[in-house]
Amino acid sequence: MFDRVCIIGFGLIGSSLARGIAQHNLATEIICVDQSRIACDRVMELGLAVKATTNPVDGVKDADLVILAVPVGAYAAIMQAIGPHLKSGAILTDTGSVKQAVIEAVLPHIRNDVYFVPGHPIAGTEHSGPDAGFAELFTGRWSILTPLPDTDGESLHKVKTMWEACGAKVEIMDPKRHDLVLAITSHLPHLIAYTIVGTASDLEAHTKDDVIKFSAGGFRDFTRIAASDPVMWRDIFVNNQTAVLEILQRFNEDLTSLQRAIRNGDGQTLETLFSRTREIRRGVIQAKQEVPPAKV
Amino acid sequence: MFDRVCIIGFGLIGSSLARGIAQHNLATEIICVDQSRIACDRVMELGLAVKATTNPVDGVKDADLVILAVPVGAYAAIMQAIGPHLKSGAILTDTGSVKQAVIEAVLPHIRNDVYFVPGHPIAGTEHSGPDAGFAELFTGRWSILTPLPDTDGESLHKVKTMWEACGAKVEIMDPKRHDLVLAITSHLPHLIAYTIVGTASDLEAHTKDDVIKFSAGGFRDFTRIAASDPVMWRDIFVNNQTAVLEILQRFNEDLTSLQRAIRNGDGQTLETLFSRTREIRRGVIQAKQEVPPAKV
Repeated sequence: MFDRVCIIGFGLIGSSLARGIAQHNLATEIICVDQSRIACDRVMELGLAVKATTNPVDGVKDADLVILAVPVGAYAAIMQAIGPHLKSGAILTDTGSVKQAVIEAVLPHIRNDVYFVPGHPIAGTEHSGPDAGFAELFTGRWSILTPLPDTDGESLHKVKTMWEACGAKVEIMDPKRHDLVLAITSHLPHLIAYTIVGTASDLEAHTKDDVIKFSAGGFRDFTRIAASDPVMWRDIFVNNQTAVLEILQRFNEDLTSLQRAIRNGDGQTLETLFSRTREIRRGVIQAKQEVPPAKV
Repeated sequence: MFDRVCIIGFGLIGSSLARGIAQHNLATEIICVDQSRIACDRVMELGLAVKATTNPVDGVKDADLVILAVPVGAYAAIMQAIGPHLKSGAILTDTGSVKQAVIEAVLPHIRNDVYFVPGHPIAGTEHSGPDAGFAELFTGRWSILTPLPDTDGESLHKVKTMWEACGAKVEIMDPKRHDLVLAITSHLPHLIAYTIVGTASDLEAHTKDDVIKFSAGGFRDFTRIAASDPVMWRDIFVNNQTAVLEILQRFNEDLTSLQRAIRNGDGQTLETLFSRTREIRRGVIQAKQEVPPAKV
């Protein structure tokens, strides 16, 4: 399907995609670019690429497909470096968790003879690095592509086919809508989980020990979510500010109203809400989004 | 160990305990009390008790051990009914998720010849009812006992031994401390999960569909937590008001400060917090509290 694929960033997503591409014979060769020399060495040890370099300009040479899989805050600098060196006719895609800011960062550096297809696979675990990846990460998961009005149809089709070959289902979506939906389904849950674990980590030592000991009551699940890559998440919040702040405000209003119900001992309001949320749970189960990833 | 055990409330916890007691031969016979006739019939079909009744007074007759496993809001009425009918020398224990309010509700109805040992197993799933239980629910999990200064030592020992026989580790704790620790590890996480799923359920239909569809990004885990029994959770918040409101206030302050960091594009503050929370996660893994229950 592709001759040479260059993946920039061999973390959980990049290395999973490398494994999926190799497993399904989608490319003749895979080139690894990672800013960490240690990660590059590990990628070679794992046999995930034919070549691993810390230099993106070197890595993208002659690549038919370039995949950005680094935290979105790093896009602009990488694009500035590689923009002039991309092969004529190459397809550029990405896996970033926000799309409007990514498009803004990439567009100024894209030549007319290079085809950009913004993308985002809705898959992940709390683990990071080239060892954390696995080919089945995308199986049964959605991968969202957010093409622009002038995105080349053939390039879009090829990127879509790549994801489908890796087991993903593909959804085409408007970038702005993507950023709003993900603010609710992913960014706010992570922000809340980071906050609650942070609140607990500020407790005095004795209480903190008990919180860890008795974490099975719900807190444990939040610690897993809050163990995700800090730099990746920093960049998501900085780059999806508007949508995150909007949904956070709604959340705060709802939380304040529950807080008032607790203060007033208003059991009826609590029970009504707690019953209403079950409907959404049924939707999630019906949508078969509850299957856990193969390896967590 | 016991001749006749009466479990009042055959939901997830009560029915799991019945299975554990039977599996480990801790009682000659188990009596089921449940307010639902349908649940009683199901308990008999499943062979979880020798007798099932909707009448607690009838159920506790001649029982050496009575276990309250109903939502804590129901304790006072049940105790008022069964108090005069408990066997002389009987042990009364419970599984309620708050302890100070439970003690206040139970004490006025306890005779001098009945021994009360307040308890709370830190285990659960989002499923409810007699079919949801399983004997291994408590394996490797903590069960907290919160005896009072005058709690009978022998009775405490027997309840402790029962939990250990069912696979649990037992911790003795002050009731007030229990309520604070659980407010952090369990009650706040559930409140937050209910809130965020509630916020999502208020979105317009099209967006809600997308939220369900792309729930794998984190939201899914919150829908699972927010699928827990509404009445049980209503009673927890109403009965652990002080501790929940205190920890909620700390959480709100922390969330406000993250909100400000996002608004200001202050990546450094975000990254610092997101890195700090990993330490707690390591603690949870080291404390072996990450093993999922046998059946979820």
